Amino acid sequence: MHDRVRQGLDAGAITALIEAHFPQVHEGSGRLEILSAGDRKATVRMLADERMMRPGGTVSGPAMFKLADFSVYVAILAVLGESALQAVTTSMTMNFLTRPKPGDLVGEARLLKLGRRLAVAEVAIHSAAETELVAHATSTYVLPSARAG
Amino acid sequence: MHDRVRQGLDAGAITALIEAHFPQVHEGSGRLEILSAGDRKATVRMLADERMMRPGGTVSGPAMFKLADFSVYVAILAVLGESALQAVTTSMTMNFLTRPKPGDLVGEARLLKLGRRLAVAEVAIHSAAETELVAHATSTYVLPSARAG
Amino acid sequence: MHDRVRQGLDAGAITALIEAHFPQVHEGSGRLEILSAGDRKATVRMLADERMMRPGGTVSGPAMFKLADFSVYVAILAVLGESALQAVTTSMTMNFLTRPKPGDLVGEARLLKLGRRLAVAEVAIHSAAETELVAHATSTYVLPSARAG
Amino acid sequence: MHDRVRQGLDAGAITALIEAHFPQVHEGSGRLEILSAGDRKATVRMLADERMMRPGGTVSGPAMFKLADFSVYVAILAVLGESALQAVTTSMTMNFLTRPKPGDLVGEARLLKLGRRLAVAEVAIHSAAETELVAHATSTYVLPSARAG
Repeated sequence: MHDRVRQGLDAGAITALIEAHFPQVHEGSGRLEILSAGDRKATVRMLADERMMRPGGTVSGPAMFKLADFSVYVAILAVLGESALQAVTTSMTMNFLTRPKPGDLVGEARLLKLGRRLAVAEVAIHSAAETELVAHATSTYVLPSARAG
Repeated sequence: MHDRVRQGLDAGAITALIEAHFPQVHEGSGRLEILSAGDRKATVRMLADERMMRPGGTVSGPAMFKLADFSVYVAILAVLGESALQAVTTSMTMNFLTRPKPGDLVGEARLLKLGRRLAVAEVAIHSAAETELVAHATSTYVLPSARAG
Repeated sequence: MHDRVRQGLDAGAITALIEAHFPQVHEGSGRLEILSAGDRKATVRMLADERMMRPGGTVSGPAMFKLADFSVYVAILAVLGESALQAVTTSMTMNFLTRPKPGDLVGEARLLKLGRRLAVAEVAIHSAAETELVAHATSTYVLPSARAG
Repeated sequence: MHDRVRQGLDAGAITALIEAHFPQVHEGSGRLEILSAGDRKATVRMLADERMMRPGGTVSGPAMFKLADFSVYVAILAVLGESALQAVTTSMTMNFLTRPKPGDLVGEARLLKLGRRLAVAEVAIHSAAETELVAHATSTYVLPSARAG
């Protein structure tokens, strides 16, 4: 039992955890679907939604920020499990590379470091229908101190 | 007439321009009010709205991203006028410093550089009721090539 | 006596501490002189040196990185004192705004946050002879865990 | 002949170009050796040198900045050729992940975007003897306007 809180989670378990704790994460942009999670990575799809669109049909910067941020969070939960629910974003650098076409976006997060106190990750964002990058992010999360316990 | 497109704009004129071209900017977060604009600076208030709240009453990261991004855009419009409407964010680095309390947020943008092709700015974000920073951002916009004409 | 290690330091005391522990900091670029330190700020001058010059007489990016990084370190030491000697840079974002002219550079660091585990700062860099910015940086340091003790 | 200035270059040609135009790039840190260049990528080795060492044998932040910056420059030259010699770094975000052990470092740059005006790249830095990352960078270069000609 003792080790259980540190146990990693798969895509289904993380989805259930998010729905239980942060159901409002889908508000204000397209719905976020966890496609895969594990091995220090996560892939998340953000469904197209008119609320995240900008004139000309492109996806808004805040929506891409949200996708990047959420993808990293999922990658952390996949390794650390429920004990990392309180992980908090401390910094995010985003580079916007091309204007995405209207439609679903996919974020692919990869943990570059998972330390005792900090996790650092990069995220590649592309349109669901294409492989060309539309944005790239690097992000740092502060991990809950419980983890050091 | 010729010089008019390069003429700077004040808060009221920018508000009218945004409402005409990007009325959807207020979607998905709290309404954005331009408090002041000019002298390479801009101050914008984001009204509290449940859609931008996270559990525990804190404001979401994407909402703060949006406030930072919009504040810089306003500071650019204040200098370059309508000809800069097509300016595009190319990068954004955000540091999240403390969890904001529920309530309105204020973004204060300042242009660090306004070149022919790029504008670089920093933004301080604080709760409307306090002076302590809750987030800090630096951002780069690519300016429309028309400007170089 | 017990509180002494947490006591802040002034420019002279920090200079002595650096010379005792990191005399090699001046290698590879111009000599670094602490002009002032305190009140969560620090001002550092980097003396012109041919090793930090690039063709055309401009100062190299790594030299500006070093000046920014050192300025933040000094601002942290000014608050936390010797106990923060083991603080470590975890991230740095630099924006290069204009090519500096040959000559001394000045870095002005300001702590945006000084938490239990992380310090976040911004740094403005300008030529000693001018006020226009040549570069701007934001940086995060991980503070030694001793501080939490 | 006309197209020649836009022609890409391999590692040997870039090395010769650097030695002719920027021989001082090796000053102040370990010597930089271009291991490979092409296909929008570059791999550069920075030889261990006491000038880039910090107490405890770790490599300094400015030296890693230099390696990252140079690796991206090589990746750009590999695509655009000599016409890109005047490309200038406009921003750099570095995340320092673990303290590198003493010894050579390797930077692996990859262009995320190569536009008409801007190039965006990421760089992974690891010790020559290991695969674990010691640092990660994203960087933006402004390309010489000649390129748009």
